[in-house]
Amino acid sequence: MPYVTPLQDFRFNLKWLAGLDEVLALPGFEEVTPDLVDAILDENARFVEQAIVPLNVAGDTQPPRWDNGQVSTTPGFRQGFADYAASGWQGLQHPAQWGGQGLPKLVATPPSENIQAASLAFSLCPMLTDGVIEALLTVGSDAQRQTYVPNLIAGKWTGTMNLTEPQAGSDLALVTTRAVPQSDGTYRLNGQKIFITYGEHDLAENIVHLVLARTPDAPPGVKGISLFIVPKFLVNKDGSLGPRNDVWCASLEHKLGIHGSPTAVLLYGSGHGEAGEGAVGYLVGEQNRGLEYMFIMMNAARFGVGQQGIAVSERAYQHALAYAQERVQGRAIEGSAGPVPIARHPDVQRMLLTMRGLTEAARAVSFVAAAAHDKGVHHPDAEVRARNRAFYEYLVPVVKGFSTESAVEVASLGVQVHGGMGYIEETGAAQYYRDSRILPIYEGTTAIQANDLVGRKTLRDGGATAYAIIAAMRETLKALDAAVGRAPATGRDSLGLLRVNFDQAIQAYEGAVAFILEHAQSNIRAVYAGSVPYLMLAGVVHGGWQMARAALVCQQQLADGSSDPFYRSKLATALFYGAQILPRAQALSAAVQAGHIADACAAQADIT
Amino acid sequence: MPYVTPLQDFRFNLKWLAGLDEVLALPGFEEVTPDLVDAILDENARFVEQAIVPLNVAGDTQPPRWDNGQVSTTPGFRQGFADYAASGWQGLQHPAQWGGQGLPKLVATPPSENIQAASLAFSLCPMLTDGVIEALLTVGSDAQRQTYVPNLIAGKWTGTMNLTEPQAGSDLALVTTRAVPQSDGTYRLNGQKIFITYGEHDLAENIVHLVLARTPDAPPGVKGISLFIVPKFLVNKDGSLGPRNDVWCASLEHKLGIHGSPTAVLLYGSGHGEAGEGAVGYLVGEQNRGLEYMFIMMNAARFGVGQQGIAVSERAYQHALAYAQERVQGRAIEGSAGPVPIARHPDVQRMLLTMRGLTEAARAVSFVAAAAHDKGVHHPDAEVRARNRAFYEYLVPVVKGFSTESAVEVASLGVQVHGGMGYIEETGAAQYYRDSRILPIYEGTTAIQANDLVGRKTLRDGGATAYAIIAAMRETLKALDAAVGRAPATGRDSLGLLRVNFDQAIQAYEGAVAFILEHAQSNIRAVYAGSVPYLMLAGVVHGGWQMARAALVCQQQLADGSSDPFYRSKLATALFYGAQILPRAQALSAAVQAGHIADACAAQADIT
Repeated sequence: MPYVTPLQDFRFNLKWLAGLDEVLALPGFEEVTPDLVDAILDENARFVEQAIVPLNVAGDTQPPRWDNGQVSTTPGFRQGFADYAASGWQGLQHPAQWGGQGLPKLVATPPSENIQAASLAFSLCPMLTDGVIEALLTVGSDAQRQTYVPNLIAGKWTGTMNLTEPQAGSDLALVTTRAVPQSDGTYRLNGQKIFITYGEHDLAENIVHLVLARTPDAPPGVKGISLFIVPKFLVNKDGSLGPRNDVWCASLEHKLGIHGSPTAVLLYGSGHGEAGEGAVGYLVGEQNRGLEYMFIMMNAARFGVGQQGIAVSERAYQHALAYAQERVQGRAIEGSAGPVPIARHPDVQRMLLTMRGLTEAARAVSFVAAAAHDKGVHHPDAEVRARNRAFYEYLVPVVKGFSTESAVEVASLGVQVHGGMGYIEETGAAQYYRDSRILPIYEGTTAIQANDLVGRKTLRDGGATAYAIIAAMRETLKALDAAVGRAPATGRDSLGLLRVNFDQAIQAYEGAVAFILEHAQSNIRAVYAGSVPYLMLAGVVHGGWQMARAALVCQQQLADGSSDPFYRSKLATALFYGAQILPRAQALSAAVQAGHIADACAAQADIT
Repeated sequence: MPYVTPLQDFRFNLKWLAGLDEVLALPGFEEVTPDLVDAILDENARFVEQAIVPLNVAGDTQPPRWDNGQVSTTPGFRQGFADYAASGWQGLQHPAQWGGQGLPKLVATPPSENIQAASLAFSLCPMLTDGVIEALLTVGSDAQRQTYVPNLIAGKWTGTMNLTEPQAGSDLALVTTRAVPQSDGTYRLNGQKIFITYGEHDLAENIVHLVLARTPDAPPGVKGISLFIVPKFLVNKDGSLGPRNDVWCASLEHKLGIHGSPTAVLLYGSGHGEAGEGAVGYLVGEQNRGLEYMFIMMNAARFGVGQQGIAVSERAYQHALAYAQERVQGRAIEGSAGPVPIARHPDVQRMLLTMRGLTEAARAVSFVAAAAHDKGVHHPDAEVRARNRAFYEYLVPVVKGFSTESAVEVASLGVQVHGGMGYIEETGAAQYYRDSRILPIYEGTTAIQANDLVGRKTLRDGGATAYAIIAAMRETLKALDAAVGRAPATGRDSLGLLRVNFDQAIQAYEGAVAFILEHAQSNIRAVYAGSVPYLMLAGVVHGGWQMARAALVCQQQLADGSSDPFYRSKLATALFYGAQILPRAQALSAAVQAGHIADACAAQADIT
């Protein structure tokens, strides 16, 4: 099924919702012009559609193969990765001094979403490599950066994150991999890591594993974890590859989806290397601060996984829409001469608009978050930086949690649009349903995102960020009020309903925040019983906010005489979101505010 | 993963919610005593857990194999079906004069759910056979019944439904399979049918296909479709098997789930038989009334597929609960000495209680519907029969649509409870996620159920049935009012919230019904744009109704001094449902009542 880059929506989001001009005006981005951004988007669309899109089904049906510790990736993936590296996409948002293009995160956001839409399984390798680059640039030594970063940015090498162990999934306090210091300043690592995405493969010359492990006298729990670089091949002083390190891929997992992405069990120190027993590792930063460093990678990766949700949603939507417009079956409910495409049937339209509304709302939130990231880092005014950083930090778990939970819903609707054909694997809709299901799990489950949102992002500052957001939402509400007054009679009802539902959704959001703040001391379990509903509520309302802003832009453009059908179509999607999706805020807020009852019920129902 | 029959919940639903005593008192069931029902449930649990549960994973991992028109089922399925047949389960609800046990539908409901939970893929064969039996008993000739029904009930033969053709999925007006009358009164059929569940297999000696086809001078559209019996082997006068008929399995589908169930492409008249060209078929009932007859099967099958939703949900819940109680990870949010089972974490509890609440609510609705079916057929008073029949007919699309959509949600939550392990196929949680996805599609998609609910079940009688239901719900609300007053102080909040949320949910339901009635003439597209939200709303509120009734029973039992932990646990599940799930009614009703906006948006967004 062809996939077409949603370039118009990318550009609309950049310009109107995320404020590209403002971001390009930040110090450090003087050379990034709007024309350059346009050229990047066009070139990315061309490259992705030609080189990566065709890999998607192959990845699903011809997964990587393990043979005695070696992994051969899906046919086509090697060429795809070579092209990807050669075209410089890995360096998009990394500094020019290390071989990257030094673009704002906002500008890197659409190409990144796009490659993930093209092939989720393929895109995981670059995404994890991005995280390793970001971690090394932030906390690696000069020598470590020199050794690894240019090769990672050039796509000669790739990177991985090694957190999980069989007994330690989300709970890193239970990590037991040991790192023993050697007289030469290196460490030797012994232990087993599981669920290592692209932990072994044949796409690149070397693999740079970032590994969490404990030194012999480390304190217990998460405060005794350090971060190590463990390259698959040791690197000689001159930068050439040395002996094979003692890290070995024992097997690949048999997964529900993302078949094209090899998920490895890695053994450190199993005697498979050429450099003696135990994997040679290099401490990154200071001892016992590994978790903190890993969060650098994880925050980038969480945003990236949120984008994956949007990407799979977009792909599933395009797939379903194409089928619905082609498949002729049943007469129109209001009467028709003969059978019509199923896209004419009201429920198929409802499903398609729900898919599109969730996708576009989540995309808008992610673009707005990326802009906040850039302003949080680069804005000259410290107060503006701080405010934007807080906003970005608040949005990261929302982008991750809401976009990925929505992706599962969207992919499921995509199967449903296809009817019985959707259940047949060859149709392709089922792949998105299978692929998407990992997204609310990896890089921190939705519950972990929600805990972050409640604890670090809402309670820690006493609700200041959340209330600031709510105040900003009310500014949009005011603008919406005015726009309803100006709207042509034909559109007033639906714009009015968006206004009413957005207003109620903000109140629902505010009520949930108040409940959380109020009960944090007295009944912490009640607060966390509603953490995921709170995250989903935030997603629905932030999505609604951006869709409301989009509606205002479109209405203005149309009022100003634009005949671009994009504005009409986008406005309709926003109005649908307002009418059909925003009301979910009520149900979610009610769930948050009944957290104490949910908690009490669990004990009474013997779920403990 | 072991599966244990939810016997206590079965018995609770039979006794307290569905009114087993009342059903057993109906004429014709004199010999069905409560003791007999108990014995059936016990024996069914024993049989299913021993003989069928072990087939579930095998069906998934070793699907049936096609070889030149022959299909070998999963190892173990033949023995399982032989045991099933020998124990008489196929005849449970069929008349004694044909070899069945003649039990009420209500009594057959728990065993039927149970076998579906044990192995969904396996259970499809008996379910379809049930439908064929019911159709032949209702509209077959005496000779046809004599020839086929006893063998079907005995499990010597099995049955299939043949509706779908490649160009005609849900739209049977497009059926093109031709049936040409022969001089001997038989017909010869030529055409292709797809998606035929158990269309070919090695479980039984013969397969009785019920096939929709057109006679040469039939009118176009659905009014020109007739129903034919096409046996795989022709049957001699003495009942022995004759020559192989010209119906041939061209291939099996490669599906997302229910791998153990062979989904066949069947060719009628492809020259593969021993009895000449064209498949020999026997007209059932009158010409051109095939669709009407097929609905007899379909109504039974729709209820059965609704049960499948409940069954998969129960199985997914048990799987997730066992994992959550075993998997130790993370400290309790309120503090704990060490890591705790993840079932202690508030969000895992929320997920498990959501799974359980949706499952038990859907089960209760299905049991209540089955009781209405029995009263609708057997009650001596014509008015009571008519009322119950209308209630049952209203509930069939709700049972089908709501239980199956919920099953997808429940199975998805089941994966999420397992975290990363849920994404690994060997864990087993992913199978339910894959298996469940067919349920909202086959036997009529959720949209088709919703069209039925709106058109035939709500609009046709001017809302009479819907409003009668709402009035009955308000009786329960009154009882709940009184119970809140009597409740001990500790439970008053949560019972009070159930009362408030049930009240609001009924209003939401009433508002949706009113919208549908009001706009059916003026804007039929607006009504159908909200048809699935209306169905889901009905499911949420009917589920809430039954959970409210369950809460009343449990509260009374506990007040009367019962120390059975089942009542405490069931009450907690009902209260959770009231607090966390019933509020969805608001969002769904809002979606229904914005149907005109959804419809307008679709056109503006170019989704046509």
